[in-house]
Amino acid sequence: MRIGALEAGGTKMVCAIGDENGNINERITFPTKTPDETMPEILAWFLGRGIEALGIGCFGPIDLDKKSPQYGHITSTPKLPWRDFDIVGYFKGLNIPIGFDTDVNASCLGEATWGGAKDVDSSIYITVGTGVGVGIMAENRLLHGFTHPEAGHILLSRAANDSYPGLCPYHREPHFCLEGMAAGPAILGRWGLNGAELKNRPEVWELEAYYLSQAIMAYILILSPKRIILGGGVMKQEQLFPLIREKTAALLNGYAALPALDSYIIPPALGDDQGIIGATQLALKAGA
Amino acid sequence: MRIGALEAGGTKMVCAIGDENGNINERITFPTKTPDETMPEILAWFLGRGIEALGIGCFGPIDLDKKSPQYGHITSTPKLPWRDFDIVGYFKGLNIPIGFDTDVNASCLGEATWGGAKDVDSSIYITVGTGVGVGIMAENRLLHGFTHPEAGHILLSRAANDSYPGLCPYHREPHFCLEGMAAGPAILGRWGLNGAELKNRPEVWELEAYYLSQAIMAYILILSPKRIILGGGVMKQEQLFPLIREKTAALLNGYAALPALDSYIIPPALGDDQGIIGATQLALKAGA
Repeated sequence: MRIGALEAGGTKMVCAIGDENGNINERITFPTKTPDETMPEILAWFLGRGIEALGIGCFGPIDLDKKSPQYGHITSTPKLPWRDFDIVGYFKGLNIPIGFDTDVNASCLGEATWGGAKDVDSSIYITVGTGVGVGIMAENRLLHGFTHPEAGHILLSRAANDSYPGLCPYHREPHFCLEGMAAGPAILGRWGLNGAELKNRPEVWELEAYYLSQAIMAYILILSPKRIILGGGVMKQEQLFPLIREKTAALLNGYAALPALDSYIIPPALGDDQGIIGATQLALKAGA
Repeated sequence: MRIGALEAGGTKMVCAIGDENGNINERITFPTKTPDETMPEILAWFLGRGIEALGIGCFGPIDLDKKSPQYGHITSTPKLPWRDFDIVGYFKGLNIPIGFDTDVNASCLGEATWGGAKDVDSSIYITVGTGVGVGIMAENRLLHGFTHPEAGHILLSRAANDSYPGLCPYHREPHFCLEGMAAGPAILGRWGLNGAELKNRPEVWELEAYYLSQAIMAYILILSPKRIILGGGVMKQEQLFPLIREKTAALLNGYAALPALDSYIIPPALGDDQGIIGATQLALKAGA
């Protein structure tokens, strides 16, 4: 089967042709400009390739309520040219099934189907990059509700030795959110260098792991996932993993019975491809 | 249809006969002593009543994994006589379908089927009493994972004017959990009086609402429920509801688009019966 996959991000649009076995056979990337500039390029690329279904993992917020007149739209994004853009509707002329979800839910689905969580039915995928997002698989279904999860904005306690005010315009002094304190731009803002340049500064990663562990504790207690996968640019700093495991266990303090943490809190198995591979799965689910 | 329902709590066991329409037609309560003393009374009561299915909403932690040899057991409870007790197995001689879940998931199911969340497919039920528990309905299914949610133990920021160390033996200085700071025993511990006696002390409810709002913000961002129902003894103080709505909105600070809060964060519609009515639904689901 020829499956179209679109990973729609704020800086780039990854388009690919995959199959039902998690393979990506062809791909191209376009920079994200405005819908008028970018979308015709994407459509033209897919048009010549005989795809039988399309899956879109999209930056948010998006409308996922199939009963809503805005289903398939990007909604209140700060990227103004994309606000209220009907990204699913744009492809309706293809007359094929179209699957649609958030970029992090697509990544979660990719890892849950072909990656590090393929052996369990409940898992979460956390991306720590320009922002922090969380995709949730609960008993083999991606979790939605009133809208999709926005779990990167949960509140946390600022460390006593940290005076950084946070980068989130919504959640600052005296209540700080994870994204505002721990996403890539917050690392740059706090230390004046980006993560890769700070690799050998242990205090950077101690603090980063402390914030991520507070959030992971909340995800564990609320969702009880069977696996936690951490991806995104910041998580390329692999020294974070043992720190996060240690601090999450310390915060839980023996309360929750958990699997062995070395195989519970892990990096992605699909490298940077969980989003685009997950989009092929969104397409398959839409066609099923 | 004659449905048996058992709401198994740490201090009392409520047994009832209900039907498939959410009615409770007969009920009896036994004090929770030891399994040897209490369980024969319960079994004898059900035996004479011709029930066709049984639903059990049980205090936790419990094993809900149907592939586990301990499925249906109460597990690591501090109530030692009940530790490792096979409460589902105890009824197997009845040869009828048995539904089994946590007490808060049963309450969540009751409100979602016949109560304040019957018009939505995603909701949560929070009980604030001797402890704090959360039941989660996500797109018409009760949420489980590695185990059931333990969302009463999520961490929060202690108020600057509060020096109470918390009652949770796991989550104390410098990281305080919701249950340890806001359950009924914490109110008594902090103020020296119980909630009903403190009704006219606004500072008590300001603080209580502050803690509950921090947790509710996390539940909203992670689960995106379409309705939030707050029950349990502490929530009999109805002055909490407007305070919780106001503080939750202030913490979110406009980030998440939400329904009107007056109909979003609400008391139970089923009074104190959501648990036992929910248990009848657990029985129906087991028989389906």
